[in-house]
Formats: sequence, structure tokens, C-alpha cells
Amino acid sequence: MKLILIGFGVVGQGFAQILRDKAAELLREENFSAQIIGVATASKGALYHAAGLELQSLLEAAQAGSFASYPEQDGLIRGLEVDEMIAAGDADALVEMSPTNLETAQPALDFCRRALDAGLHLVLANKGPVALDYAGLKSKARAKGLQMRYEATVMAGTPTIQLAVDALAGCQILSARGILNGTTNYILTRMEAGLSYDEALSEAQALGYAESDPSGDVEGWDAAGKVLILANALFGRSLALDDLDVSGITEITAADIAEARAAGQRYKLIASARPDGGAVKATRLPLDEPLAGVGGSTNAISLKTDLMGDITLIGAGAGPLETGCAILSDLLAIQRMPSAT
Amino acid sequence: MKLILIGFGVVGQGFAQILRDKAAELLREENFSAQIIGVATASKGALYHAAGLELQSLLEAAQAGSFASYPEQDGLIRGLEVDEMIAAGDADALVEMSPTNLETAQPALDFCRRALDAGLHLVLANKGPVALDYAGLKSKARAKGLQMRYEATVMAGTPTIQLAVDALAGCQILSARGILNGTTNYILTRMEAGLSYDEALSEAQALGYAESDPSGDVEGWDAAGKVLILANALFGRSLALDDLDVSGITEITAADIAEARAAGQRYKLIASARPDGGAVKATRLPLDEPLAGVGGSTNAISLKTDLMGDITLIGAGAGPLETGCAILSDLLAIQRMPSAT
Repeated sequence: MKLILIGFGVVGQGFAQILRDKAAELLREENFSAQIIGVATASKGALYHAAGLELQSLLEAAQAGSFASYPEQDGLIRGLEVDEMIAAGDADALVEMSPTNLETAQPALDFCRRALDAGLHLVLANKGPVALDYAGLKSKARAKGLQMRYEATVMAGTPTIQLAVDALAGCQILSARGILNGTTNYILTRMEAGLSYDEALSEAQALGYAESDPSGDVEGWDAAGKVLILANALFGRSLALDDLDVSGITEITAADIAEARAAGQRYKLIASARPDGGAVKATRLPLDEPLAGVGGSTNAISLKTDLMGDITLIGAGAGPLETGCAILSDLLAIQRMPSAT
Repeated sequence: MKLILIGFGVVGQGFAQILRDKAAELLREENFSAQIIGVATASKGALYHAAGLELQSLLEAAQAGSFASYPEQDGLIRGLEVDEMIAAGDADALVEMSPTNLETAQPALDFCRRALDAGLHLVLANKGPVALDYAGLKSKARAKGLQMRYEATVMAGTPTIQLAVDALAGCQILSARGILNGTTNYILTRMEAGLSYDEALSEAQALGYAESDPSGDVEGWDAAGKVLILANALFGRSLALDDLDVSGITEITAADIAEARAAGQRYKLIASARPDGGAVKATRLPLDEPLAGVGGSTNAISLKTDLMGDITLIGAGAGPLETGCAILSDLLAIQRMPSAT
């Protein structure tokens, strides 16, 4: 399978490491083999080779900060635009891993549309295009007999989407609620251990869980983007951020945490999606709910179903290898059922 | 998809109810339609109609205790043997739902082999054939380009196998441990609430969780059968019951439960599978482990992976509709990828 990658940050590098380290295992156990033939980035440059880029050199160049140091090679093209990579006609799938933009989803959204038009399967770690134009992309994919997959957009490699969409296909999902942002869950967990909000946030930043501008996480927008994706994937509902009731954890104080604890409860930032809408809200849960027991940066989702009661999935919500694994898992699913949508 | 069912107890009836009640939804959303053309049972008789049996009549006859009351119809054949149903050549898949026998897996195992030889996909709720001859059945299926699926054998409809085998295909699973028997988990949960073992067992029997002879559950054999299946599915290891270290909960006293609680722990009957073996043992878990929080008749499994840390799935472990859903989910997976194995 020949791949074009957009974006090559920690997730892209994690994915390339997996392809490098698991090549033999994937060929043996899954009859799967993939070449990265194009990589386009905003800050490191772009590389294209129709026969496949060399993964170790690609990773070293990325770690050095620029593809300029990628070794010269017959057939290598530097600086090619994404549109030209797609138009070249060599690729089987586009993997969109550039940073999420929940306002316009651009330029990623246009790249995704062009890739589908050109007959490429689509795999996304970037939440923007799935959150803002799920229906449009899905119908383009369906019309072409292609797949659009986006396991990495919710709970990283923990297979939320495959669980809800494929494995539970015979069931109706009535609602979903989860802990879909690891940074805020880490902060709340540390506040339970006695830290103030500011101390817990600083610690999360020092550990690389929270960005220097943490607003996307702590105000609930990252989780809200995931709610938009779930609303589409589970209920076929195209919602906008404005349709959601979103608040974060910035107003939660040590006193709130203590009060909840005294009542046998625990604060969690709960993202929920229902057929008629969604929300992201700090919520007090009884300690015996499965979601209440999910600590640290771990994520979780509970799906309420018509025939099988509640099903809860708990796992990593971030991480380069975890997210890289989700992309691999989507590519394996495409190989298993190339024309399903 | 035309189906032959072996066994028509609560699981078979749950499955038939789902097909009856969801026919329109399945056709619309999954482009799926199935007819039950044959049903063979030990106690109710056997029915066969190449064009499909009528589900409501079938369910009513089953509830009346005998297929003798199923209405006469052109083309209906009563009392056909399973081998003749298979040989008739009308069916696409055999669904094995007769009671589990972990000693010989017969007669189900022979039916499964003949079905694969005759070109039928195989779906199992009966643990016996998967636990005792996974490798043989899988290789027969592979040679014929057919699927053998067995989601219902572990955690009923909670999609354990699809999670571990399909969704985590890119990951290596290093080990699995879980609460795979709902009856014993219910008894332990009630003992925590102050009941004696005998009181909790009587309550479980009154609620229909435990059978009048509860030894298969409380001595750990039901969970052990599931460990054999997981050892095959996750690690490609064919183990026998003798290879496992199996004990149940019959020795656990109210005093043990109290002692664990005083130490901040909780007893669970933990079934575990590793590449080099497996076990079923009552185990004291710290309260903050995800598995410790799983109460009542709920089941759960934690998978340790190479790239994604621990992934935990929690859901129903029994129930007619839950298990019927697993069978449907396997049939949907066969429709999505008919030639994958």
C-alpha cells in the first residue's frame, strides 16, 4: 500500500517507526506492506519518491528538523505540493496527520476531498475534516467505493471507532459518554491528590501532556471536536461546535474536588454524544461508575446500546506509538475490506 | 445469507428475535438479510425449509417446547439430520449454539468440520469446538477461503474477539486477564455486600445466573474454556484444560472477603492467558485496578499490548439478546469480508 502523509510531527514519526520496526511481522501476520511515498509538512519541507522513502533516513531528517538532510537519491523529488503528489497517481491512500483546526479544517479538508476524488482511501488523525465535514467526505468516499477511516481522532489507538461502528454494527447505540481528553483527566486526578489547579496544570505541561497554551484542552474544545466526530459516526448527525454545550475544568477548585470526595463522588470532564446533541462538562460521578475509576491521562468511553446494555472501553488517549497504531489499524482494515465504506 | 442453526435454546431464540425485530433496520443500514433455513435441536426436533423458516412461528414453537407445533407448509421438512441439512447445499453458514462440552466438543465439532468441508462459513456460540480444535477448524476454514467466527464464546456480545483480533491487528497482545464468568462475579459481589457463599449462590440460582449444578461456573471451568479460546485467538497456542492452572471460588469465605476489604482489595475470579499458558484463579486486586471495579454479573477483559499499553473492555457476559447480538455481529463481519480468515 503506497501512502502520502500530510504532517510528520510526533504522530507521523510514531507511525513511521511502527512501519520500520514491524515490517516483517506485518508482512508475515497480516500480509501487509506499506511504503510512504510522499510526506508534506508545514515546517520540515516535503519529500516524494514513487518507489517509497527510506524510513530510517526520513525519521532522522525529521528529528534534525528539516527534510533537507534526507539523502539524495534517484527519483527523489523535493518540495512537491500535496496536490501534485495526489495527481501523480502512485498512491493508494492519503494519511492526514496535520494539526487539528476546528474552525475551518483547512487546508486539510481540501486535501482530503482531492484525495478521494483521485481515488485514494483516506485515513485521518487530524480531527478537523471529520468533525466539520464528515457527511461530505463519507459520501464522496462511498460514491467512489473508497474508505474514510479516522480511528486516531478519538482515544488515539484505543479502537473506539472500530468498536462502535464495526464490532457493534448489529446493535443500535443510544448514547455515548466518555473521558476523551487525557490532559484534563490528568489534572483532575492530580487535584484529587491535593494539588491546586495551577500546580496540576504546570505538572501536566512539564510532562508534555498539556501545551503551553492549554486552552484547547482545559476549556473542553479538544473533547468537543471528538463529540462532533462521534455524533456523526454513531448517529449520522452533523453538528457544529455551536450546537454543543461546552465547558471545561478551569472553574473547578480544590474545594469542589474535596466536596465531591466527601459525597463519595469524583469530578470528570465528561464528553457526551446523543442523537439529539452533545456536551462537554465537568461532572460529578459516583465512585462505582466505570468512568469514575479512570485516572491519569487514560481515556474511556461508555456506549449505551439497545440490546447489550453498557459497553465501556478504557485505554490510552494519546501518544505517538498509540496514535500511530490507530493509523496502522485503519490501513489494515482497508486491506481487509477495500470497498466497504 | 442462509443459515443452519444447531441448538435453539435461549441464545438461539434471542438471535431469532433480533432477526425478526431488526430485519428492516439491518437491510437498510447494513444491507444485510438472513433466513434461518434449518434448525436442529436435541429436544425440540428439527425443521428445514430451503426458502427460510418463519421466525415468529419458530419462536412460538420453541416456547411451546417442540417444533411439532410449527405450522405445516409446502417445502417444509421435519426431522432432517444436521448432515442432511448441510449436504442439501442451500446454506451459506452454520451457526453452532448447542451446549458446550469441554471434554470432546462432540457432536458439535464434527458438524463444524462437515460444514466447512461443504463450503459453509462457521459461527459459534458453543465454546467446545473453538476451545478444543481451534487450529484444525481455522486451517480448514483458511484452506476453503471461509471464515470461522466465535465472538459469542467470550463475554457474549461484548466484542472481545473483534477488539483483540481485528481492531488491534497492528498491535501485539502480550497477555490478557479478565473477569470472564458472570455467575462467580455476581456471587463475589454479593459476598462483599455481606452474604455468605451459600446465600449468594442461592440468590444467583434464583435469578437464573447460576445453574442448579453450578460446578462449571464456581469451579472455574467455564472461564477456563474461554482461556483456551483466547490462547488460540491471541497467541496461536493450542492448550488443553490440563495445561491450565484452574481453581474457582468455592473456597472463598466471608472472612477472606473481609480480610481483603480491610487491605483495600477485592477478590475477583481472574482468568488469564499468556503465550506460555493460562490460569483461572480467585485473586485479590487493589481497588484502583479497572477490573476491581467490575461488579455484579458484568464481565471485563484487560489486554496488555506492545504499543498501546493496557486496553480494557467492560460489558455484559451473558444474556440471550447479548449473545444473539454477537452472532449477528459475526455474520455482519462475514458479509463485510467474506474471504478473510
